Amino acid sequence: MLKGIQAISDALGPESVTTDEDDLDFHGYSEISTSHCTARPVAVVTPKTTAEVSTIARICSEYKIPMVPFAGGSSVEGNFTAPYSGISVDFSQMNQIIAFHEEDMDVVVQPGVNWVDLNDAIKDSGLFLPLDPSPTALIGGMVATNCSGTNAVRYGTMKDWVVNLTVVLADGSTIKTRRRPRKTSAGYNLTGLFAGSEGTLGMITEVTLKLAPIPETQSVAVATFPSVRSAVTCVSKIMRQGIPMAAVELMDEVQMAVLNKNGGAGGRMWEEKPTILFKFSGPAQSVAADISRVEKIASEGDRIAFEFAQSEQEMHNLWSARKEAIWAMCSQRAEGTQIWSTDVAVPLSQMPEIIDLSKQESGALGLFSSVLGHVGDGNFHQAVMYNPSDPAQTRAVQECVQKMVHRAVDMEGTVSGEHGIGLGKKECLLEELGPETISVMRTLKRSLDPHFLLNPGKIFDR
Amino acid sequence: MLKGIQAISDALGPESVTTDEDDLDFHGYSEISTSHCTARPVAVVTPKTTAEVSTIARICSEYKIPMVPFAGGSSVEGNFTAPYSGISVDFSQMNQIIAFHEEDMDVVVQPGVNWVDLNDAIKDSGLFLPLDPSPTALIGGMVATNCSGTNAVRYGTMKDWVVNLTVVLADGSTIKTRRRPRKTSAGYNLTGLFAGSEGTLGMITEVTLKLAPIPETQSVAVATFPSVRSAVTCVSKIMRQGIPMAAVELMDEVQMAVLNKNGGAGGRMWEEKPTILFKFSGPAQSVAADISRVEKIASEGDRIAFEFAQSEQEMHNLWSARKEAIWAMCSQRAEGTQIWSTDVAVPLSQMPEIIDLSKQESGALGLFSSVLGHVGDGNFHQAVMYNPSDPAQTRAVQECVQKMVHRAVDMEGTVSGEHGIGLGKKECLLEELGPETISVMRTLKRSLDPHFLLNPGKIFDR
Repeated sequence: MLKGIQAISDALGPESVTTDEDDLDFHGYSEISTSHCTARPVAVVTPKTTAEVSTIARICSEYKIPMVPFAGGSSVEGNFTAPYSGISVDFSQMNQIIAFHEEDMDVVVQPGVNWVDLNDAIKDSGLFLPLDPSPTALIGGMVATNCSGTNAVRYGTMKDWVVNLTVVLADGSTIKTRRRPRKTSAGYNLTGLFAGSEGTLGMITEVTLKLAPIPETQSVAVATFPSVRSAVTCVSKIMRQGIPMAAVELMDEVQMAVLNKNGGAGGRMWEEKPTILFKFSGPAQSVAADISRVEKIASEGDRIAFEFAQSEQEMHNLWSARKEAIWAMCSQRAEGTQIWSTDVAVPLSQMPEIIDLSKQESGALGLFSSVLGHVGDGNFHQAVMYNPSDPAQTRAVQECVQKMVHRAVDMEGTVSGEHGIGLGKKECLLEELGPETISVMRTLKRSLDPHFLLNPGKIFDR
Repeated sequence: MLKGIQAISDALGPESVTTDEDDLDFHGYSEISTSHCTARPVAVVTPKTTAEVSTIARICSEYKIPMVPFAGGSSVEGNFTAPYSGISVDFSQMNQIIAFHEEDMDVVVQPGVNWVDLNDAIKDSGLFLPLDPSPTALIGGMVATNCSGTNAVRYGTMKDWVVNLTVVLADGSTIKTRRRPRKTSAGYNLTGLFAGSEGTLGMITEVTLKLAPIPETQSVAVATFPSVRSAVTCVSKIMRQGIPMAAVELMDEVQMAVLNKNGGAGGRMWEEKPTILFKFSGPAQSVAADISRVEKIASEGDRIAFEFAQSEQEMHNLWSARKEAIWAMCSQRAEGTQIWSTDVAVPLSQMPEIIDLSKQESGALGLFSSVLGHVGDGNFHQAVMYNPSDPAQTRAVQECVQKMVHRAVDMEGTVSGEHGIGLGKKECLLEELGPETISVMRTLKRSLDPHFLLNPGKIFDR
């Protein structure tokens, strides 16, 4: 392995390679992740071009060194850990916007571009990339995880916004999956195969993204409910009527209480009740019509209150409850505890049942636990705070999460709505899809990466 | 091969196998296709269940017999021809709606279900499958070709509506790509890989489809322009402003004249000028607002006339121009001539240029030729009527089409927006993507179908 690293250093220059312990730790461990391993990469390499990535892959292939792509480091299922060591390929220096085709409504970027920076750079065009994952996420990781976030209910997930990818394969060869048409039925959908493959099939070095027009108007409404079940039942009805929601986010009473404990959000304190935050977008008339329709549906159920923003400032204030949820929770975290945060997605009609049961079970742990999430998609997150040095507690949390995942699978759902599989959910994926389907994935992997050098140990085992 | 067919007949019953010459012809040749081969399948097999398809694959694998899936027979690039003979696997008897989950907004169907019948069967629920290919297309073929049609500008293409697939692989093993969540980031996107793979990776035996709510209101407007270039320039502006069009269809002056020659459409005669048909959908208020915005953009250019439907009847009348275009053209076809119809897609800004040039070049042939298509997507079709028994004419048409395809590739477009590659566009695909990318497709193919038994000779050569 050291010979290989020396060869990379010779080829790229020593400034592109580090073996500093802190760097290795930073690239092999994340506090916000639920899955960890003790192994670390032996080096971190920071390429600047597709050609350099190709050189890295060629050398790693020759010396049989695992390559673990690293982008924003914001994934939560151990997606960038290095269980077989090897090198971490850090894309943060490949952070250029290569070409912005305003008239074609697309943009070509390197994988190290941050999505918030991208949207800021192009905002005068009236276009944006309509995804909303962690604000620290970089495009390469977003594609590799097929991320989404609050906007997915309207705009779909990351794979739906990728026009083409430039990918370096395990042996160092480079391909481009497609040119720049917005629509195609020409040959295999390689773009869609590499998207969501978590760096196990190739390393993404360039991405063309579709862009959407920034909506004319946005608004936000907040409704509180007596129970999580009644809140989610209301959401199911709204989705079933086809109202084009921009976002539909659940926060349970625990989340709302955390906001208050943290001093509130948006300049106010909140009802500590299960809450749905609705985002609307489109031309002003449609937004107004959509708000009335949602208010009517909510009032037909047993909602306690319904409030919508009367001004842009109010809109930001209401939405800040959602934006600040995770930070509020982290800041309330006691010394030595960790947050186990994981997500599943189920068919829409199953949501009230799974959220209700999962909440009951995690509530019974006697720990801090809450549910929140993108309920318009059938996708939600459960977060439990626990002490990892307490084996009984750790086991109890693990069992509780496993129950939720089993239940999602029983309901014909998926074990990961938007976080990927990484290191942490391989067993769950096997349960979800069965050995025959995993075997097809493994066959495809083996055909492109026969020595399992690309992010080995992720999604499924060799 | 005959031994294998006997084994299939023994396993499935003789009523499931035919070697009738007319049947073989019907399954190996299509008048509406642009690509043909002289070979025919040696038998047509009509399975009724996934288990029977698996049996067929197992036997074909043992006897090394090519398997060519056949659904509606409406593809146009020779997608279901049998250049290496073998058996045609006809899915028309697998035509059941298996489960309709109204609350989950999805439906599980067999591949032989016709999409018009499906939408008719579920229409009381207020849901529909928002694709619009040939009215004779069946779901299995629609998935395999990643089809689309007039609605794609609003709803995307077929792959975007598939939740999961049950697929029989070359060796007879059966997998399900996914359960039923509307959103997932769990493992490789096998659904998206099999969709659009034209039966070369597996045979689709069951499909779960997302459904969309039927829009509250629809309307149609028609605008005529002095030139195709000015018409398409207007469309580029509309798309760039993000107006959520339901469909944007171009018909050139030749198409409009054909309608008139055929006695008109929608109870009227038409201006014989380049024409754009706009479809709008959504809540009544937004539709009205969208029509005004489109009318304003059209009036800023050099449109000759703009007319929108004032009633449901008028809407149907206006839209009938688009619906009847292809039939009108076929009915005008002289004895012995064929229509060469093919499509490409390019980035939006390139559309005026490529359509203008393609039209000039095909016009110079001295044959009947026209352009029409889904210009809101950057996707359009060119149709030329020619006499296939005249070699000079055939060659001239071929060269003209090739020029259009080269130009689309030069403009970073694709050689097939919605018809797939089939037999006819393999060379074009190689030009579009290059040998390295095709080589990755071939590697994936080989890993799942090492003996090239599934629809061999399509998309790329062995």
